[in-house]
Amino acid sequence: MQKKGILIVISGFSGVGKGTLVKKLLSQYPDEYALSISATTRSPRENEADGREYFFKSRPEFEEMIQKGLLLEHAEYNGNYYGTPAEYALSQMELGRNVILEIEVQGGLQVKEKYPESMLLYIVPPDAKELLRRLIERGTETMDVIQSRMRQSLRETEYINRYDRVLVNDDLEVCAKELRETILQEQDRINELHQYITKIRSELCDLEFLKGE
Amino acid sequence: MQKKGILIVISGFSGVGKGTLVKKLLSQYPDEYALSISATTRSPRENEADGREYFFKSRPEFEEMIQKGLLLEHAEYNGNYYGTPAEYALSQMELGRNVILEIEVQGGLQVKEKYPESMLLYIVPPDAKELLRRLIERGTETMDVIQSRMRQSLRETEYINRYDRVLVNDDLEVCAKELRETILQEQDRINELHQYITKIRSELCDLEFLKGE
Repeated sequence: MQKKGILIVISGFSGVGKGTLVKKLLSQYPDEYALSISATTRSPRENEADGREYFFKSRPEFEEMIQKGLLLEHAEYNGNYYGTPAEYALSQMELGRNVILEIEVQGGLQVKEKYPESMLLYIVPPDAKELLRRLIERGTETMDVIQSRMRQSLRETEYINRYDRVLVNDDLEVCAKELRETILQEQDRINELHQYITKIRSELCDLEFLKGE
Repeated sequence: MQKKGILIVISGFSGVGKGTLVKKLLSQYPDEYALSISATTRSPRENEADGREYFFKSRPEFEEMIQKGLLLEHAEYNGNYYGTPAEYALSQMELGRNVILEIEVQGGLQVKEKYPESMLLYIVPPDAKELLRRLIERGTETMDVIQSRMRQSLRETEYINRYDRVLVNDDLEVCAKELRETILQEQDRINELHQYITKIRSELCDLEFLKGE
């Protein structure tokens, strides 16, 4: 029997290197993982294709998805909705791929609520100076933005303990290896659990003793 | 720095041997563990002492505890309240003891909601026949009660996947060892996490860069 994939939420301080980690995993093991594609109501940018960067939706379409429970999580930023469609993720899991959601903490907690078998992973830097160094080195944000990102990190420390596992991203190679091992271990655990539950249910139903009512 | 204790919920099918497992752990490592004492509105039986078997409360007292959020979980059975006072558990954890709550699934899920750092463990039998054998061997229930317990087990399989870990109680010695190792591992993880969070918060606050606002 083929193993099913699991749902993995990856969150972490801004600048910690989540994106690089996830890209590494996807390029090294393209058959093991799938990256979840978000839905959004914001307009596509040049070079963005529907179903590749995002599923682009109108506001009424998005609100219908919310009402029908078709999203694993959603939030509104700057007047646009963003969310994770359940269907794509669940169908990839059926195919045996572990599905990665690189999302914010609030979204991660929504996913866990809706789908208790998901695994929430939080990526942290070895220390604050290194986080600052990475944000500066990235060179994509102004100092004001970097400052607000660092303050956001401080606020997010409140939620780290809700996550299932915390991984320190000191050396990228080491962290990527640890990440994959953590995922494979959890995938095995969940698959064994499902097998056990199927087995014990069938045994309990088969007991002559319980029949006749 | 002394390690703090963690909160452990132990649930499992009726007859699986939870009680025996917990007693074994407590008698082997009396300094590592404390058993949570429940509060109840039912009357004390002969030989039961307040603060030993239960904290005995009046109905208004219990309802006040609910309102003030002083219970980690509570439920009503047969017209009586039962619940887990937070204070006793948390004070034992401060002393470094891992606190064990042997409670039902619904209570376990309430605890996790209220206290996300708790670890929910579910104990299962190797198979359904063995579970039935243990219930019969125990000799404390009528066949009607045993039958309803087995049906309850079948219903509970719906919730097992909400638990953090599932342990198979085949051989008592082996399972007790696995239980202790699982707890110690989680205790280390939580203590390391708290240390990291304290460290990174202090580092983030110390960064000159973030001051001045």
